[in-house]
Amino acid sequence: MPPPETCAMQPADLIITARWTIPVEPEGRVLDDHALVVRDGRILDLLPRAEAEQRYSARELVRRPQHVLLPGLINAHTHTPMTLFRGMADDLPLDTWLGQHIWPAEARWVDAGFVRDGAELAMLEMLQGGTTCFNDMYYFPDVIARAVDASGLRAGVGMIVLEHPTVWAQDADEYLRKGLAVRDQFRGHPRISMVFAPHAPYTVADDSFRQIRLLANELDTQIHMHVHETASELAESHKQHARRPLQRLDELGLLTPLLAAVHMTQLTAEEIALLAGRGVSVVHCPESNLKLASGFCPVADLAAAGVNIALGTDGAGSNNDLDMFGEMRSCALLAKGVAQRAEVVPAAAVLSMATRNGAQALGLGDRIGSLLPGKEADVICVDLSAAATQPVYDPVSQLVYATSRNQVSDVWVAGRQLLADRQPLLADAPAILARAEAWRARLSAARGSNAHD
Amino acid sequence: MPPPETCAMQPADLIITARWTIPVEPEGRVLDDHALVVRDGRILDLLPRAEAEQRYSARELVRRPQHVLLPGLINAHTHTPMTLFRGMADDLPLDTWLGQHIWPAEARWVDAGFVRDGAELAMLEMLQGGTTCFNDMYYFPDVIARAVDASGLRAGVGMIVLEHPTVWAQDADEYLRKGLAVRDQFRGHPRISMVFAPHAPYTVADDSFRQIRLLANELDTQIHMHVHETASELAESHKQHARRPLQRLDELGLLTPLLAAVHMTQLTAEEIALLAGRGVSVVHCPESNLKLASGFCPVADLAAAGVNIALGTDGAGSNNDLDMFGEMRSCALLAKGVAQRAEVVPAAAVLSMATRNGAQALGLGDRIGSLLPGKEADVICVDLSAAATQPVYDPVSQLVYATSRNQVSDVWVAGRQLLADRQPLLADAPAILARAEAWRARLSAARGSNAHD
Repeated sequence: MPPPETCAMQPADLIITARWTIPVEPEGRVLDDHALVVRDGRILDLLPRAEAEQRYSARELVRRPQHVLLPGLINAHTHTPMTLFRGMADDLPLDTWLGQHIWPAEARWVDAGFVRDGAELAMLEMLQGGTTCFNDMYYFPDVIARAVDASGLRAGVGMIVLEHPTVWAQDADEYLRKGLAVRDQFRGHPRISMVFAPHAPYTVADDSFRQIRLLANELDTQIHMHVHETASELAESHKQHARRPLQRLDELGLLTPLLAAVHMTQLTAEEIALLAGRGVSVVHCPESNLKLASGFCPVADLAAAGVNIALGTDGAGSNNDLDMFGEMRSCALLAKGVAQRAEVVPAAAVLSMATRNGAQALGLGDRIGSLLPGKEADVICVDLSAAATQPVYDPVSQLVYATSRNQVSDVWVAGRQLLADRQPLLADAPAILARAEAWRARLSAARGSNAHD
Repeated sequence: MPPPETCAMQPADLIITARWTIPVEPEGRVLDDHALVVRDGRILDLLPRAEAEQRYSARELVRRPQHVLLPGLINAHTHTPMTLFRGMADDLPLDTWLGQHIWPAEARWVDAGFVRDGAELAMLEMLQGGTTCFNDMYYFPDVIARAVDASGLRAGVGMIVLEHPTVWAQDADEYLRKGLAVRDQFRGHPRISMVFAPHAPYTVADDSFRQIRLLANELDTQIHMHVHETASELAESHKQHARRPLQRLDELGLLTPLLAAVHMTQLTAEEIALLAGRGVSVVHCPESNLKLASGFCPVADLAAAGVNIALGTDGAGSNNDLDMFGEMRSCALLAKGVAQRAEVVPAAAVLSMATRNGAQALGLGDRIGSLLPGKEADVICVDLSAAATQPVYDPVSQLVYATSRNQVSDVWVAGRQLLADRQPLLADAPAILARAEAWRARLSAARGSNAHD
């Protein structure tokens, strides 16, 4: 007969103990010396370590005595394959950057191999920086979805839609048809959500928007789109449609909780109220907006209105990294500067944006984004023992204002460990880096301008 | 008889070879596969690796095949002991932060031991992040100077001056007298420059400024001061002096090339022209200004006017780290957002601010800040092999827009290695971190609010 204390022991797959745990729900809470219990890829319990030792018997125990345990970060807007363009063209206005550098490079180089190699580099970077889920928009979503499947990460993969022809499709009908075929292929995948991704109001026509609205409502599928990124987008919309893009999208029935509207640097008070009323999510990309001088997203006003605000890095072509720690810090700092009030957008609110709010923007609010029992175990550990993050009065402040991406030690997605003590377990890092360097050599040779001196 | 190629070999102490070298002078230059030759703590030569192998015979050879070699970063404004307040009070306006948190904490806790332990923690963080020189302002400059001496780093140590009494001195005369005594103690120190540090126009009286001007001119010594940090500082100056602080300082004869004016968020076009004409250096602290909602320094306009712009982190109490990579990125991004032009303040200009311009602001422009032969060998290596900094089209872009502080692998100051393959050689990191944690425990216990839950 087993001893009495063993009688009550419940089985688990994994227990992670940490110096601090930040469950994100409720916002701002920090638990000392707790244990997260995982079974079948889900969070079974979160309780004081001493109690966990009495109550659960796990196959694996991971102790992280100088770390914070928190939900994995969610990058709500990126274009993963563009990591292969990182640093290729900087310090340029959006139209020059796109028209003279990015679009020509895409026309010449983007194919399935480029997309696979770029997405793999991006996912390696995100994994090492504590991002467990991302919302992607690019050509060849089939290739991206296969790469996500192999990586162990979670993603919303965009079914991109444009009117103009590219290497992926010739017109909006073909984009939609091919996107839906990818959706069929990955239906029921536990870590991949296919998301409609009409590129922007200025590149997609009303008829296409109507189709997307019908399909999104019918299939209960999210929509991921650039909206109100720059002042010139609004000026163009006035010329072509005699209205602001948000008004046009509202008339087309697209302003619903299914929409994640990215950038949103140009907003009136009425539009902010409209977004709150319609339940639209805003994806804020502070570093991209700054680098391209696109304008300031009014984050403090959106937050005050109750709009769900998520965070994104944008592609590494414009950012130039996929670092959600950097993005959290930039978000908190910039919001205060823009609002001229140091008390707005505090650290805990920013951490919610990078986790729980991102999950909601991706339509995954009931599955990930916080450490509530029943949610999937997408979690990370961050080592705060570095000089730059000592001493620790408040781990939430430390994560947002002082932590660097390399302090992420461990990553699990749906309970499966993908990073252990800073080492990738699935990704073949040397091979991924070698393929990235091969692309650089090819692109640089073609540009004939690798020599700096 | 030695073989002919050995006849011409010159002796050296150290040769560092790197995949890329960025000498900073001339701005924007990147050298492939070069070697830096060091003798007697100074840069003897910078030349292609193959030529260096023919020409120099060194006692030590350091090969860094996936790294950038560049001048050490210069943090032109900080308050090192305040690292012990990191994250103690965030998301508060400047007056609340100072009046209700920082000043009471300083009154209760700051003594020589606090200053030593805080400065050592700050220097460990800066060393690990590639900062080789910093410009400090705090109480107990004698303690700070001793800590700098022991650390191997280089610093401008502020002779702080205020009118009101603190633990360090009772009135401006005593501050000055004690500061000058520290200066005598460290006269001729190869790595320590004592700098006048009147705190700000609103805390220092005209008579004290006149004395400081006389002494600074006589002793050819720099002046380090907060100026035009917030709009309320200007409003207060209008009430008390019926003029803006810069006008008052100009009338007092303080606007000269000896002055490093920190923050400068409130500037008219006329003032920018005045600063350029007088040769004043501006120290820009983008993250501190954002976090405290102090306003935006017009960096693009200052640069266009030819003003020397250096970069600083401010103290970790307000930033919350001493990360010059983060500060470079924030500077480049914010300048574009504020100017609404993506082409302003490009990466190479920002790297100059963090190196050469900082040296000029500290009065060390002829000794450090670039890799010109004859300058002291304050240099760092940065490893770009991480996924987040691959591929590399342009190492300058990579350093400013994508590199994290932890990628600094090696640091030398005056030719002496202080960090080797990420390990501190002089600093006793475990002891420094233990003392920081002891201070946190003491402060938290006194505040009675360590429990979050």
